[in-house]
Amino acid sequence: MATRSARPKRATVHDVAVEAGVSRGTVSRYVNGERYVSASARDAIEAAIAKVGYVPNTAARNLVMQRTQAVGFIVHEPHSLFVEDPNIGEILLGANSRLSEADHQMAVLIVDSERDTDRVARYLSGGLVDGVIIVSARADDPITRVVERLHVPAAYVGHPPGAASTASFVVIDNRGAARAITERLAATGRRRIGMIAAALDRDSGADRLAGFREALGERFDETLVEPVPLYAYSSGRDGMRRLLERAPDLDGVFAASDAVAAGAIEALKAAGRRVPEDVGVVGFDDSAWARRTTPPLSTVRQPAAGLGAEAARLVLARLRGEEAPAETSLDCEVVWRESA
Amino acid sequence: MATRSARPKRATVHDVAVEAGVSRGTVSRYVNGERYVSASARDAIEAAIAKVGYVPNTAARNLVMQRTQAVGFIVHEPHSLFVEDPNIGEILLGANSRLSEADHQMAVLIVDSERDTDRVARYLSGGLVDGVIIVSARADDPITRVVERLHVPAAYVGHPPGAASTASFVVIDNRGAARAITERLAATGRRRIGMIAAALDRDSGADRLAGFREALGERFDETLVEPVPLYAYSSGRDGMRRLLERAPDLDGVFAASDAVAAGAIEALKAAGRRVPEDVGVVGFDDSAWARRTTPPLSTVRQPAAGLGAEAARLVLARLRGEEAPAETSLDCEVVWRESA
Repeated sequence: MATRSARPKRATVHDVAVEAGVSRGTVSRYVNGERYVSASARDAIEAAIAKVGYVPNTAARNLVMQRTQAVGFIVHEPHSLFVEDPNIGEILLGANSRLSEADHQMAVLIVDSERDTDRVARYLSGGLVDGVIIVSARADDPITRVVERLHVPAAYVGHPPGAASTASFVVIDNRGAARAITERLAATGRRRIGMIAAALDRDSGADRLAGFREALGERFDETLVEPVPLYAYSSGRDGMRRLLERAPDLDGVFAASDAVAAGAIEALKAAGRRVPEDVGVVGFDDSAWARRTTPPLSTVRQPAAGLGAEAARLVLARLRGEEAPAETSLDCEVVWRESA
Repeated sequence: MATRSARPKRATVHDVAVEAGVSRGTVSRYVNGERYVSASARDAIEAAIAKVGYVPNTAARNLVMQRTQAVGFIVHEPHSLFVEDPNIGEILLGANSRLSEADHQMAVLIVDSERDTDRVARYLSGGLVDGVIIVSARADDPITRVVERLHVPAAYVGHPPGAASTASFVVIDNRGAARAITERLAATGRRRIGMIAAALDRDSGADRLAGFREALGERFDETLVEPVPLYAYSSGRDGMRRLLERAPDLDGVFAASDAVAAGAIEALKAAGRRVPEDVGVVGFDDSAWARRTTPPLSTVRQPAAGLGAEAARLVLARLRGEEAPAETSLDCEVVWRESA
């Protein structure tokens, strides 16, 4: 097996100047796009740059300009969910497209532990990005405190409790959408409707439960709510098993996300229940999961890519020094298929 | 709607010095961890830092140290596939864990167009990362040229044709694994075996086709190979439809990835074929797709997280100036389930 050694030195302005036979100052003026560089000097410098393989030291220029043209995209999720949740990918790609149009580089940073939080804090304080987009932050999230302490221009997808209003927040009406899908489920004649309520430590999770409760009004039964930690398939499957044990006569389920609903449908089938004949199931997201379940899932479509794009737009506005709204809400709609 | 203005100024060394009543040089010595700072000065500086909210300018220090403690993870994929392919997520998380242990920040950079390539090149030349991990690069990929030109310490997952041996490559034996799964499929008694051959512009795609061809030897029939562009569900579904039209008597299929296999199974079912009774189907990856298909997929397990972790390990070794092997190969194994 062949082995290779480490990084060679990069060419410097000095190397270019020597090669071109001009002063370093002249090379600097050329590199920075300033005037007062003669045509002959320009030709010599361009030839020298090509020859020595010089790349302008943008890091040094960034230090003066205090700009990197990079925006961080911070995902605070357990590793496994980052792979499983198609919504995060859609939000990420929506943000990337918008930043790309504005010629900014997106750098995705994954936070999954206390240690990750400290490291991301160091990365942000190092000025390696100009601003950040934050997805799925918790109440009183340490990342939120870091961003506030460093005064990094920020936009959140969602609105975690405890985040200061110095940032922008792009949200959906989780409560209203959860109310709408629950009412639609109830209208199919279901009488014992339960909920698999995920991620109650986040605004989205807590708001979806609140909407469910509002829709059922006096028919709301606390024993039919099964809290689970994550918006994940396994959370849905395990939660549904426990809920069925407690309430075998249940005939409707609102799962807090499509991945949760897919797990719930699996558990219902394993317990010999037919979907939708015996139990109607509805989800939330309209992610790729909704089209993978059998039968296809009735759910709420949230504009995932739109949330990412809007968060990117707001960070870019802040970077230009423009005013940005504190909170922007995007619309959702009920998509009715065959699972209820 | 409340509005907020842009970023306030960060506190500087000067602010700390004024607050602490010491010189800027003393503050600098403290911040850089040097000796010759008296205990009383240290106390005053610490109190001043807390009061004015000073954060040491790591960007400036990085410029001197030429280190950011950050490593780029470049994914060259169409946007849609980034969300759909669970393998990329697994590779990414494997790399993130290893970098995290070494206290390095991973920054994921997505490349999907010419424009993205130019921007990533600028980002890399700006020194915003110390090294890079590159996934799913093509033959003569522009990103490869950029990385070589800038002499960025790099490790690839896969080994794209045209990449210089100044980088490290972490690979699997795509050809051997494709041969093994095809032989296993043939051993079930199938006589007309086709292949949906994805991504022939990459080493992985071309090598899987070569292994398929080797396994069948004289029984190899070129008309039973259907080339498709991507390792994607839709590529598998559309490719299977075309292959079935051409060869309705086909009784076995090797799909170049699990997502491709899932699409192929869907198309076979839609055409009234039973899997595995009428047509045996095998995939490649053992990703989450393999457990979502009905019946569960027979496939090749590739160590996706291990590939990412090994690539990270090699970049870190290069950053420490250690020798790193040019190519490392990780093992795969056939996983036999019910689809063939």
